[in-house]
Amino acid sequence: MVDPRDRGLAYGDGLFETLRVTADGSVPLWPWHLRRLLRGARALGLPSLPETRYLSALEEGVAALGGKPGVVKLILTRGPGGRGYLPPSNPKPTVLWQAGPLPAWSHQLREQGIVLGLCGEPLHPESLAGLKHLNRLPQVQARREVARHGWHEGLLLSPRRQPLEATSMNLFARLDGHWWTPDLQAARAGVAGVMREWLDEHLTEQGENVVCDLRPLSQLADAQGLFLCNSVVGVLPVRKLAQWQWPVLDSVLQLQHSVDALFLPR
Amino acid sequence: MVDPRDRGLAYGDGLFETLRVTADGSVPLWPWHLRRLLRGARALGLPSLPETRYLSALEEGVAALGGKPGVVKLILTRGPGGRGYLPPSNPKPTVLWQAGPLPAWSHQLREQGIVLGLCGEPLHPESLAGLKHLNRLPQVQARREVARHGWHEGLLLSPRRQPLEATSMNLFARLDGHWWTPDLQAARAGVAGVMREWLDEHLTEQGENVVCDLRPLSQLADAQGLFLCNSVVGVLPVRKLAQWQWPVLDSVLQLQHSVDALFLPR
Repeated sequence: MVDPRDRGLAYGDGLFETLRVTADGSVPLWPWHLRRLLRGARALGLPSLPETRYLSALEEGVAALGGKPGVVKLILTRGPGGRGYLPPSNPKPTVLWQAGPLPAWSHQLREQGIVLGLCGEPLHPESLAGLKHLNRLPQVQARREVARHGWHEGLLLSPRRQPLEATSMNLFARLDGHWWTPDLQAARAGVAGVMREWLDEHLTEQGENVVCDLRPLSQLADAQGLFLCNSVVGVLPVRKLAQWQWPVLDSVLQLQHSVDALFLPR
Repeated sequence: MVDPRDRGLAYGDGLFETLRVTADGSVPLWPWHLRRLLRGARALGLPSLPETRYLSALEEGVAALGGKPGVVKLILTRGPGGRGYLPPSNPKPTVLWQAGPLPAWSHQLREQGIVLGLCGEPLHPESLAGLKHLNRLPQVQARREVARHGWHEGLLLSPRRQPLEATSMNLFARLDGHWWTPDLQAARAGVAGVMREWLDEHLTEQGENVVCDLRPLSQLADAQGLFLCNSVVGVLPVRKLAQWQWPVLDSVLQLQHSVDALFLPR
């Protein structure tokens, strides 16, 4: 249980990571997650904790999965205290874990692609862009919109109507001989996903050209194919968005398999 | 204690109100607070609760103050559950209370005015502007900046450098024969404070002209006087911001006393 005065609850003053765990209890993307968590902690001015604090929470979460593949969520908050918004001068951060099953995406959707809708409210810039902090109301509101329309996921645009990301996944598109993903740093919005980072490195290693910038929504009409990704679900092809449809590219299914292979027990 | 899966902690998926309580246990601005809370609940799509849920939490908080003037904070969250950002279809909201002393602002600062600094990061627009939701990292970060500089409070500007509000207070300025307060609805940013609303009504009743729009920062140079307000602290004159200084207007001290009188035991 959590102290009701915890600043994570009071102000969303903290961070989280959602980690995919294999059946043999390993967390292949842990170094990527930890790096983002530490980057977030620095941005929020949280005191640095011994890495064992995170590791023991992670181990407890993995143990709770009991040898099944699943998800462990870590939450790091600034802990209780302070005068209103002002943090205490000597904060005692809270580290929590939760364990649960992998989200279910059918074999069919993973092979034939999902339907993406266009969310009405833009994703506004913010100073803590890229980080996985606990201020997630824009995503909650967007996810409610996705459910109302019966889409599988929703695309969030910048106020200038540039595609940025989905509510809980990052976006890639195949465009004339290169891969493209939105430049979230330039947009100062969105979450720089661990899987997006892994894919960027993986594709670049394979000699592919990955371009990261901001483009108008209309660019997607020229894409050969689209996919979404995150570190829990992996790679999901997109077959439809508004009036546009795309085939599921073999290269996207290959990426999906490469990612799935990361999480096979060794 | 709070369920660690509560969406208030996970995503800041909820709202709060901070209520000033008099020595005889009354909450003079309760109707204003409740109205904003219900407006927020509608915007988030929370199920409507019987008003007794809020009232009994408030009563417990007031009782905990034990006959001293103080502050009761109410937190309303969407409760636990859901799949990721997607809320559960039948949420069970959480209502929490906390009780504490009034924040201390010295007699001297209340009479001679406080020093305001200019926060570096703008307050970006958001879809839930005006509401007192639990996504408060921009205010936490701004408040850290205020502390670093040793200011009493910090002024937050829009991305177009229009004054919007302070980290936990709203702004009013006296300008040639009228009172001015920033139009937060037009800016789509900030918290529409209960005290701001009360003052708007009070000043208008007294035949004063209250103008609400967006103006450049440079307008403040022409102001005859400035003050900040919120429902807990009341009215605080501002004597200095960056290179500008203002006298403490008698009319501001009169407003301060009118507000203080609201919270005297009857």
